[in-house]
Amino acid sequence: MSRDERYMKTAIQMASETVGQTSPNPSVGAVVIKDNELVGLGVHVKAGESHAEVHALKMAGEKAEGAEIYVTLEPCSHYGKTPPCAKAIIDAGIKRVVIASHDPNPEVSGKGINMMREAGIEVRTDVLKEEADQLNLDFFHFIQTGEPYVRLKTAMSLDGKIATHTGESQWITGEEAREDGHTYRHLSDAILVGIQTVLSDNPKLTTRIEGKGRNPIRVVFDSKLRTPRSSYLVQNEEAPTWIFTGKQASKEAVQELQAFNHVIVIQQEGEQVDVHQALQYLGEQKVTSLLVEGGGTIADAFVRAGKVEEIITYMAPKLIGGKDASTPVSGKGISELKSAPEYQVVSHDQIGEDIKIVSARRRENHVYRDY
Amino acid sequence: MSRDERYMKTAIQMASETVGQTSPNPSVGAVVIKDNELVGLGVHVKAGESHAEVHALKMAGEKAEGAEIYVTLEPCSHYGKTPPCAKAIIDAGIKRVVIASHDPNPEVSGKGINMMREAGIEVRTDVLKEEADQLNLDFFHFIQTGEPYVRLKTAMSLDGKIATHTGESQWITGEEAREDGHTYRHLSDAILVGIQTVLSDNPKLTTRIEGKGRNPIRVVFDSKLRTPRSSYLVQNEEAPTWIFTGKQASKEAVQELQAFNHVIVIQQEGEQVDVHQALQYLGEQKVTSLLVEGGGTIADAFVRAGKVEEIITYMAPKLIGGKDASTPVSGKGISELKSAPEYQVVSHDQIGEDIKIVSARRRENHVYRDY
Amino acid sequence: MSRDERYMKTAIQMASETVGQTSPNPSVGAVVIKDNELVGLGVHVKAGESHAEVHALKMAGEKAEGAEIYVTLEPCSHYGKTPPCAKAIIDAGIKRVVIASHDPNPEVSGKGINMMREAGIEVRTDVLKEEADQLNLDFFHFIQTGEPYVRLKTAMSLDGKIATHTGESQWITGEEAREDGHTYRHLSDAILVGIQTVLSDNPKLTTRIEGKGRNPIRVVFDSKLRTPRSSYLVQNEEAPTWIFTGKQASKEAVQELQAFNHVIVIQQEGEQVDVHQALQYLGEQKVTSLLVEGGGTIADAFVRAGKVEEIITYMAPKLIGGKDASTPVSGKGISELKSAPEYQVVSHDQIGEDIKIVSARRRENHVYRDY
Amino acid sequence: MSRDERYMKTAIQMASETVGQTSPNPSVGAVVIKDNELVGLGVHVKAGESHAEVHALKMAGEKAEGAEIYVTLEPCSHYGKTPPCAKAIIDAGIKRVVIASHDPNPEVSGKGINMMREAGIEVRTDVLKEEADQLNLDFFHFIQTGEPYVRLKTAMSLDGKIATHTGESQWITGEEAREDGHTYRHLSDAILVGIQTVLSDNPKLTTRIEGKGRNPIRVVFDSKLRTPRSSYLVQNEEAPTWIFTGKQASKEAVQELQAFNHVIVIQQEGEQVDVHQALQYLGEQKVTSLLVEGGGTIADAFVRAGKVEEIITYMAPKLIGGKDASTPVSGKGISELKSAPEYQVVSHDQIGEDIKIVSARRRENHVYRDY
Ligand SMILES: [Zn+2]
Ligand SMILES: [Zn+2]
Ligand SMILES: [Zn+2]
Ligand SMILES: [Zn+2]
Repeated sequence: MSRDERYMKTAIQMASETVGQTSPNPSVGAVVIKDNELVGLGVHVKAGESHAEVHALKMAGEKAEGAEIYVTLEPCSHYGKTPPCAKAIIDAGIKRVVIASHDPNPEVSGKGINMMREAGIEVRTDVLKEEADQLNLDFFHFIQTGEPYVRLKTAMSLDGKIATHTGESQWITGEEAREDGHTYRHLSDAILVGIQTVLSDNPKLTTRIEGKGRNPIRVVFDSKLRTPRSSYLVQNEEAPTWIFTGKQASKEAVQELQAFNHVIVIQQEGEQVDVHQALQYLGEQKVTSLLVEGGGTIADAFVRAGKVEEIITYMAPKLIGGKDASTPVSGKGISELKSAPEYQVVSHDQIGEDIKIVSARRRENHVYRDY
Repeated sequence: MSRDERYMKTAIQMASETVGQTSPNPSVGAVVIKDNELVGLGVHVKAGESHAEVHALKMAGEKAEGAEIYVTLEPCSHYGKTPPCAKAIIDAGIKRVVIASHDPNPEVSGKGINMMREAGIEVRTDVLKEEADQLNLDFFHFIQTGEPYVRLKTAMSLDGKIATHTGESQWITGEEAREDGHTYRHLSDAILVGIQTVLSDNPKLTTRIEGKGRNPIRVVFDSKLRTPRSSYLVQNEEAPTWIFTGKQASKEAVQELQAFNHVIVIQQEGEQVDVHQALQYLGEQKVTSLLVEGGGTIADAFVRAGKVEEIITYMAPKLIGGKDASTPVSGKGISELKSAPEYQVVSHDQIGEDIKIVSARRRENHVYRDY
Repeated sequence: MSRDERYMKTAIQMASETVGQTSPNPSVGAVVIKDNELVGLGVHVKAGESHAEVHALKMAGEKAEGAEIYVTLEPCSHYGKTPPCAKAIIDAGIKRVVIASHDPNPEVSGKGINMMREAGIEVRTDVLKEEADQLNLDFFHFIQTGEPYVRLKTAMSLDGKIATHTGESQWITGEEAREDGHTYRHLSDAILVGIQTVLSDNPKLTTRIEGKGRNPIRVVFDSKLRTPRSSYLVQNEEAPTWIFTGKQASKEAVQELQAFNHVIVIQQEGEQVDVHQALQYLGEQKVTSLLVEGGGTIADAFVRAGKVEEIITYMAPKLIGGKDASTPVSGKGISELKSAPEYQVVSHDQIGEDIKIVSARRRENHVYRDY
Repeated sequence: MSRDERYMKTAIQMASETVGQTSPNPSVGAVVIKDNELVGLGVHVKAGESHAEVHALKMAGEKAEGAEIYVTLEPCSHYGKTPPCAKAIIDAGIKRVVIASHDPNPEVSGKGINMMREAGIEVRTDVLKEEADQLNLDFFHFIQTGEPYVRLKTAMSLDGKIATHTGESQWITGEEAREDGHTYRHLSDAILVGIQTVLSDNPKLTTRIEGKGRNPIRVVFDSKLRTPRSSYLVQNEEAPTWIFTGKQASKEAVQELQAFNHVIVIQQEGEQVDVHQALQYLGEQKVTSLLVEGGGTIADAFVRAGKVEEIITYMAPKLIGGKDASTPVSGKGISELKSAPEYQVVSHDQIGEDIKIVSARRRENHVYRDY
């Protein structure tokens, strides 16, 4: 591992602890190095607060003069709530900047780098880029598409069942796998289920992890607006509940639900909730990541819309069988194998007694080649 | 690795190349060591031929006097087609015997060891036992139950589908996974499909691997004896075809099929083919291992009968969806999760683009604790 | 890896980049976690400046209320240049503290923990303690003994030669090994050679690494004060030069050398420079780590004094031979093997073409069991 | 691992257990594969006995017809005590031959392959060649140079001492390292020490390993023929003792020693024993490997003669020091670093408390490219 990689690795390690908490901003880490001494470090903690570079330069103080800064993402170049970090770096007298990821926004990508180079600073890019890109999969997708990055999470038996034919579905996978699954709620801006799941399970959709976790916005696809007033999602205010519905929903039903402060109803013009429209709405509301937890009909709608970016599969070493037992993606399904979106396995691990497989949409060369 | 483990490892490595070919006998390897020199080695090649110890002692010749022998399985003690290996070892003047696995037959287990100890030979057991036991999973199960060891092999998408809702099922998994799957045919005494698979796919059920492979006996569950005379399994003589049927089958139909030399029809007394009876019949015919390849109804019958010992799951990183898309185990299925037989994951690997998961029935302590 | 270990690992990773730069203070890292979100981080950059906890709490701001803090070393409890960190943690409203290493000073160890516990804070200790202890080997030794931690660095052939019998010694090991060796200069407060080395090699003893490194204080053992005025160590002011000498040294010679601002002469009362006295003097001057680079007579003096804590051995795959070829530790040597201090190998790696072996003094149980 | 590699690996594993026992012949393993079934295996056990291929073909019997054979070394093509293996392979009806190593003798290399190809057999070479070449380092060197492959074994402290300045040398390294060292005696045709070692240690030079080991021929370099009649090497007949001496040795002294049946005296014409002449003599006597154990003057003579092919270094984590303490290679030594023969590290491992480093002479491309 080279010197540049070693310092960048520390910046990435720091940033990795902030994944999910900075939405709709990216996770970023920065370290300031002066003559091989670490003199400043920082991360971006929360949207609206200081950028990682600002924290790191502040801690470095006068030592920043003539120092190097390692940043996991290209420093910003625009005047927003705060002056651009590229300018802060120039003003601090930094002599060399090392960067991992590029800015995913094609309109500003490279501008920060140019600003600094024009100021006479040496800039090196792409150091541990792939590792750093992983920190901001959601953000990069969001910036490029205006829609949240969609993860489909499923838990099933070795023969692809999520319940017995009698409907028993509790505890197919073990405790470790369920806990692991809850971390995805903590990391996601929103979580989505269908009305069928609301009616049959009355779920909480909150995050239960060791230490307190963030609760995602709870999104329901409910074409006929059948979500009961008495349901947990309506009665409980721990997190916002956003209900997408169709034209059949009556004004009265909408009003009754919106009477709850944390509940919003979004009425679309079609009979069925449209996946594309819903994702665009969520994107406009700065939802950068969406966790789809089911049920099978909802999953199928997202699959057929081609909107699933990543699949988290937990498999329990069990066989359940049954033609009528439920499977994680039901609905209509695709008709031809060649039209199935292509994924690739990213990792496979044993979690407790179960196997976890993470797959992501296949990209020809690398993740953000298009712009 | 100790000296004993090192020599046993070589014997196991040799024996591992014979897995499948010795049925209904076990795979066994032996090396003779004289003063830390390898002076003889052997494996059991084929049922009816010399045992591993005999080959190794023959190669060692007079050097066996005062030597050690490492055998992966307890030497036999009974007079069969050949005199017992325990006696051959004593006669050769071996002074020390190192053994990995025990004889799985409770009636003879330990007898060979006793014979040799009474002759003044030092005997050490259980050296690399777990590794050696893996060589003979099928044989040990067969000896203890009288039935073949049943493997269920499935290939499906990440959402548990083996075909689209339109029935398209070709090439869900990639070429490497399919080739890997064929090695299980080479290693199995018999392969089983249901009549539905025969009617819809007209399969060959032969082994296609690099170099020529063994073809397993082709077994069909066909309650109403609908297997067509024109089907590949009937027309092609590359391997025997055994058809299990029920009481509805007419004498004429049975005779017509049995007219083919390689075809046997086994008629049971019930309406449906009974899994237990079929396994007992196969065991009586010295079939020690059975590969169940489908379809879903057959797999379900084996699951509900509690007869699946091992599950080979190939998963392609694809999503197919569809309430009506087929799954690897269909039929009636189990009703309660707690009645599902318990398995544990033995391995998970990437094969080409796909994931292969091997699971085996969970045992409390170790594999053969019961006798 | 548990949640506590994961956050501590980040704190350790940050602190590891400051090893060497905080002397005579320890390297410390801290992260503040609120509801599984990273809200503050810090390291101790330089003696006299803010402690790690202060940086981390400052960055966290109001978010520290009800948060957890992970610190690689027990927070301080004494009022020095700054108020104690234990108090800062209490005042900030932290609810839980997780600690890796204990304070090595028996007089204060545990006091910070007690302060915080009495204030109602939950304190967990020993999380990744061993890993964190490695960051401060030098500091812990210095606090407990008042002397610097002594590392002996040698580079030799496979037959233990540092030069041919004709004295040729350049480049025995390769470039990678030499570069690796220079990082130890960067990490050490002082470096030591004997007068023989000064006379024959006229060395610089400065740090040449990628990016600028810290230069250690250059220490010479020179009993008869023969260090030439024209030597690099006297003419060059890049780093202080401290010369230990004996009673034979004339006042004039001492004065002449001390006329150079960066040169100090320490005159002892014996004929030979005494290792113990020299180490105590260095400890009093807050030198926490000393790198002994040779020659063989100096190394021997330290070995016989039992003062070598760690040995860095670079071995080139060469054979040189020669009864008169120099070896890394010459002098008188020990007389009986049983009186040789016991070391244990900590690591062995290939560096370029050479082998690097790190050995450390063997401890019965753990590093700091004595107090 | 491909199919060919898998079968070759088994053949190599078998052959690896015969290393050392087949001298002056190579270690060879062979397996016969028919339709992916192992039907024969064999190794070469002892010079003068059957070759590996003969054992394997014999075990395969009629199954060899149409089978493949995997051999770790090119089958022989000459009529010696036995007909050539290439002919045996042709006669057996083998259809494909897979080979790892080539025959090292340039006069016959390729002839066996040609014979088989001309007979219509498919021959593939170089499968796992590097791994197989390792089995016969000694043999290949011996065939190409007519001299034994020389290994220098040393045990020393971290500062390159083999004894204290008072001469204490027992137990510098630990028990595991000493046991490991004895396996090299078992694997060597001959072991060599100088007269100084005989006079001071009166060594046995026999092999003490678990199970009985082979004793190498005990060779002494004794220019003035001072080996005492009462020494262990003369009194004890466990292994031959060959004493090289110079022109000063008196006829009487020679006769007195040769009176012992197991003792041979080889008188050279110079004053000092000449390394080159001695190695040529040993080669003529079919000694393929020589283990040089010391002392330092002997080691130096071999180093300066450029005859050390491999160096086995055991290092104890101790510091001994002392200008007069002995080092593993003493004598005159080389004068210029650039004239030192170049080695490369092959492996470094911890053995008990010690480090073992194996280095071998560097070769430009691969081992036997020259012919
Ligand atoms: Zn910024
Ligand atoms: Zn037998
Ligand atoms: Zn403090
Ligand atoms: Zn031959």
